[in-house]
Amino acid sequence: MLVGDTHYRTIWVHPSEEGCVQVIDQRLVPWRFEIMTLRDVLSVAHAISDMVVRGAGCIGVTAAYGMWIAARQAATMPHPEDAIKGYGAALKQTRPTAVNLAWAVNRMLLAISAASSPEEAIHRARMEADLIAEEDMDACRRIGQYGLQLIRAISEAKGGSVVNILTHCNAGWLGFVDYGSATAPIYAAQEAGIPVHVWVDETRPRNQGARLTAWELAHQGIPHTVICDNVGGHLMQHGQVDLCITGADRVTRTGDVANKIGTYLKALAAQDNGVPFYVALPSSTIDWTLTDGVAEIPIERRDGSEVTHMEGITEDGHVHTLRMVLEASAVMNYGFDVTPSRLITGIITERGITAGSMARSSPPRTS
Amino acid sequence: MLVGDTHYRTIWVHPSEEGCVQVIDQRLVPWRFEIMTLRDVLSVAHAISDMVVRGAGCIGVTAAYGMWIAARQAATMPHPEDAIKGYGAALKQTRPTAVNLAWAVNRMLLAISAASSPEEAIHRARMEADLIAEEDMDACRRIGQYGLQLIRAISEAKGGSVVNILTHCNAGWLGFVDYGSATAPIYAAQEAGIPVHVWVDETRPRNQGARLTAWELAHQGIPHTVICDNVGGHLMQHGQVDLCITGADRVTRTGDVANKIGTYLKALAAQDNGVPFYVALPSSTIDWTLTDGVAEIPIERRDGSEVTHMEGITEDGHVHTLRMVLEASAVMNYGFDVTPSRLITGIITERGITAGSMARSSPPRTS
Repeated sequence: MLVGDTHYRTIWVHPSEEGCVQVIDQRLVPWRFEIMTLRDVLSVAHAISDMVVRGAGCIGVTAAYGMWIAARQAATMPHPEDAIKGYGAALKQTRPTAVNLAWAVNRMLLAISAASSPEEAIHRARMEADLIAEEDMDACRRIGQYGLQLIRAISEAKGGSVVNILTHCNAGWLGFVDYGSATAPIYAAQEAGIPVHVWVDETRPRNQGARLTAWELAHQGIPHTVICDNVGGHLMQHGQVDLCITGADRVTRTGDVANKIGTYLKALAAQDNGVPFYVALPSSTIDWTLTDGVAEIPIERRDGSEVTHMEGITEDGHVHTLRMVLEASAVMNYGFDVTPSRLITGIITERGITAGSMARSSPPRTS
Repeated sequence: MLVGDTHYRTIWVHPSEEGCVQVIDQRLVPWRFEIMTLRDVLSVAHAISDMVVRGAGCIGVTAAYGMWIAARQAATMPHPEDAIKGYGAALKQTRPTAVNLAWAVNRMLLAISAASSPEEAIHRARMEADLIAEEDMDACRRIGQYGLQLIRAISEAKGGSVVNILTHCNAGWLGFVDYGSATAPIYAAQEAGIPVHVWVDETRPRNQGARLTAWELAHQGIPHTVICDNVGGHLMQHGQVDLCITGADRVTRTGDVANKIGTYLKALAAQDNGVPFYVALPSSTIDWTLTDGVAEIPIERRDGSEVTHMEGITEDGHVHTLRMVLEASAVMNYGFDVTPSRLITGIITERGITAGSMARSSPPRTS
């Protein structure tokens, strides 16, 4: 997508320096835009653990290219196969809860294991990493096309006037290789010439909406308005939201959705006001082993400093952090909540759109 | 209530300097605690318009004492009665939307109008202002006693274990003369020896929960935890909230409640999880002319800088403001939302507790 006048992905193979990849340093967005070059496995591991890259898709693809770099480094060592496995284990530990990370590393190890020489291992690794990146982009592109149908239908029902879409957190292209999940239908609508406007929840405590989603939309030239997380219900009561689309961190086979904390409150307001509420995700996000999201999905408790402190910029553009809550008060910081499938109109994946609660009424057979 | 080891109200007559009142400068809470002395009508007007004092009850009482000061100033002028009316008109304009402000000034003008001399006017004004302050405290004290019954019942049902109460924004003693509305039952429970814990919504964008309510509770020694506004739904899903109590800015005769933006989302979550949701307010907050809150109550749009910028302190205790949202993004800042009475378990006033929707099923007769 666009950053200024230039098209970017979140990760790409260095155009001139052999065996390196480059990523957008997402820790600095939106205050600064900087590219980081990853030249060895250690720097890839740090990029993932320090959240230079974040978002399920982007983490997976970064780990995949990390395994390509691992294959290159291992080729100069006495026992390349053991070295590659060691690198894979190290990469998997960078963010233990990220499902895509282990999946991508395992897939790379499998591809590399079929090679009969270190050179072939490097070649196969590069092909597989490129393929994983392509698949990520393709899934997001398809999500965009399916979601576009929803937006187009609303636009036609409104006689072509602006479609107002509310989103929470960042399920944008920064979290994948390109397009994003929740944002893909929005970008597809822009391309199709359908006028849209996006309400962007700031998404406390880490402000990924105000920082990342707003930045994406601004660079892509999509009209949008940042609101506090408290505002969405009022907007829906007054007909100012036509459609909600969020991403998801984990979805049960019954359609319960774990996503950024606060998603559940917006889904309640959508139901109370008859606003369609969709969740967009690659189907790899579905955890077919789970039935009851509220009871079964463990919710991460994160550091309280995310609540007590906030990062921003001074008038002269310096990044600073201020304390917002005094030390005399305790804080509690849950990272996610679970929205029951009964509140979800539909789930948009690269395979199409399914009713939110369809899986519950007609569960897949289990052995 | 307690600030450190000292009992305070938000406003009191200066103990030694004749004809002055003193207030807590609420703009500086929680970073600093400073007392401001108001010596003339102009400084009273500034204290209200600059939000040195805020909250319906506190504004009304400040204006009442402002009229006492006005009577003293007018006594030295050629036409005291005209001067007093002029001062009253000036005070009413300091925050035009505050219902209590005009009410308090009008009541003071009526009391003063019965005087046959400037000296008697001063005397009557002082008596009336003291009475308005007493009535404010008495209403909050009664709200506390009625609300205490709810907390006591929950405590008994839980076998005496801690009662978890969620509140939004600040309907605490800082917004009145003492006790507060939503906080009064909590302070009454503490006094009655019932263990309580309060979940404090930080309440973006102005953070009155994190700044004011948390400060009040900390000084009063009440266990509490500050959470982002996104968290309440998750807590209710997991049985961590026994009771919600908020304040109100305006209530229709049918029981619809206008309160700080985001209240509606918490009421939805409470209903979805069977958590009782109460609103505490002096009955003067009820607007008997309104029937449909969502349609009829005008919602104030406030300056976008409240969303884009945030005030906090540096590690060495200096107060600073940082930008959180870049200028490339639009922002929208609604101050309040309306919670329909169907979501409200009950309304606690100084006259007792009424079912949230009772007024709708049996409306008072109108002429």
